[in-house]
Amino acid sequence: MAGAKMVERQSGVALWRQIADRMRLAINNGDFDETGMMPPEMTLAARFGVNRHTVRSAMAALAEEGIVRPIQGIGTRIERRDRLRFPISKRTRFSQGLGNQARDIEGKMLEAATEVAPSIVAEALGLPIGTLCVRMETVNSADKRPISRATHYFPAERFGEMGTIYDRTRSVTSAFRELGVADYVRRSTEISAIHAEGDDIRHLKLSPGAIILVTTAVNTDLSGTPIQFSRTRFAADRVKLTVETDV
Amino acid sequence: MAGAKMVERQSGVALWRQIADRMRLAINNGDFDETGMMPPEMTLAARFGVNRHTVRSAMAALAEEGIVRPIQGIGTRIERRDRLRFPISKRTRFSQGLGNQARDIEGKMLEAATEVAPSIVAEALGLPIGTLCVRMETVNSADKRPISRATHYFPAERFGEMGTIYDRTRSVTSAFRELGVADYVRRSTEISAIHAEGDDIRHLKLSPGAIILVTTAVNTDLSGTPIQFSRTRFAADRVKLTVETDV
Repeated sequence: MAGAKMVERQSGVALWRQIADRMRLAINNGDFDETGMMPPEMTLAARFGVNRHTVRSAMAALAEEGIVRPIQGIGTRIERRDRLRFPISKRTRFSQGLGNQARDIEGKMLEAATEVAPSIVAEALGLPIGTLCVRMETVNSADKRPISRATHYFPAERFGEMGTIYDRTRSVTSAFRELGVADYVRRSTEISAIHAEGDDIRHLKLSPGAIILVTTAVNTDLSGTPIQFSRTRFAADRVKLTVETDV
Repeated sequence: MAGAKMVERQSGVALWRQIADRMRLAINNGDFDETGMMPPEMTLAARFGVNRHTVRSAMAALAEEGIVRPIQGIGTRIERRDRLRFPISKRTRFSQGLGNQARDIEGKMLEAATEVAPSIVAEALGLPIGTLCVRMETVNSADKRPISRATHYFPAERFGEMGTIYDRTRSVTSAFRELGVADYVRRSTEISAIHAEGDDIRHLKLSPGAIILVTTAVNTDLSGTPIQFSRTRFAADRVKLTVETDV
């Protein structure tokens, strides 16, 4: 929409990355839908006002993300144009949220430990400072592609077995059920965006320098007692969040 | 939470920018709240594993964003720690949304034009391809600091005067009212994140390479007819979005 074609140089973000972002946007906007192929390097270089070397680097980044695929002797095919839609609602659940957008949706536990909750977590869960929580680190994938990395906290007194049960069931919803919480609701979600950092880059298989969408969420049981605090980092090039409010 | 201290080199994002992001996070986490001052350059250099030159560049970027301020002969004071909270809800309205977080909330029109709606807009508004819309470009500020840049579309047949009225009232809600829409609701919001590009960098007074949160939203009148499509770009270092779902 009304976007200028200008590219920022000396911006702290490599030119190829800016061009990769712009190409991704153009793909998602359907600019190349007629052929399903990326235009030749020279055409792209002219369109974005950069040299062919930069176009090549940008294209390599998109290929790494699985968005385009070079086909020997033919050109570069567009593999996939849109991001997965992850709904934020009162009934947000990871696997159901993605619905039929992926065949294979998987949660994996990296680590679980019982420890004193950070003050920000204790506050959000309405617990006294110093209360023990189960901290659980997970990665979620769709069709084998990692899409989010989350750090969850559960009050330890009530959910001491969360780590063990999640590791078996791979589902927070199932684990809650086994621990006596038949149903739960999302109370609040905060959404921000930052550059990916640290281990998230590795776990999410991001090309370094990528952007992540961060959601900070609190879930409660049906009596309104907070039972879960989660900070989830979504790969912004693979996921967009959706909020339906007209209900 | 459980964040590694590692910094990614050769990532397509300059080191000073990564360090600026990490410092902003540390400030928001309250790491320096005891003194309200940033630690000396040497301490920060050691903490983040970079040299003092990089720390200085990162600090300059934070100063440009108004997060820290160098005080001659004393050190660097922390001016502001958190982002404005912008709620996404059925009743999302720009000025009310920010509530008492800023004294002075302002909308400014850059441009209004009547033109054929892009196909993605026509589809979202339930209009036949080729329908005329009023496109309106706005910048919103809080306490003189720009926080979002938006492109709005309104069906021209019903809202042909939108640009003129907004330019006078500086409020979409007021303009709708004058045009016979007493009330309206947010139907849906999509949220994604990308690097800022083009004119957005200038209008939002971003340090180049900054991240923007993009919301794509549809509003309807109370009969359910879509009346507005907006694509809003929020400066991610100044705003976080919040969704309350437990209602």
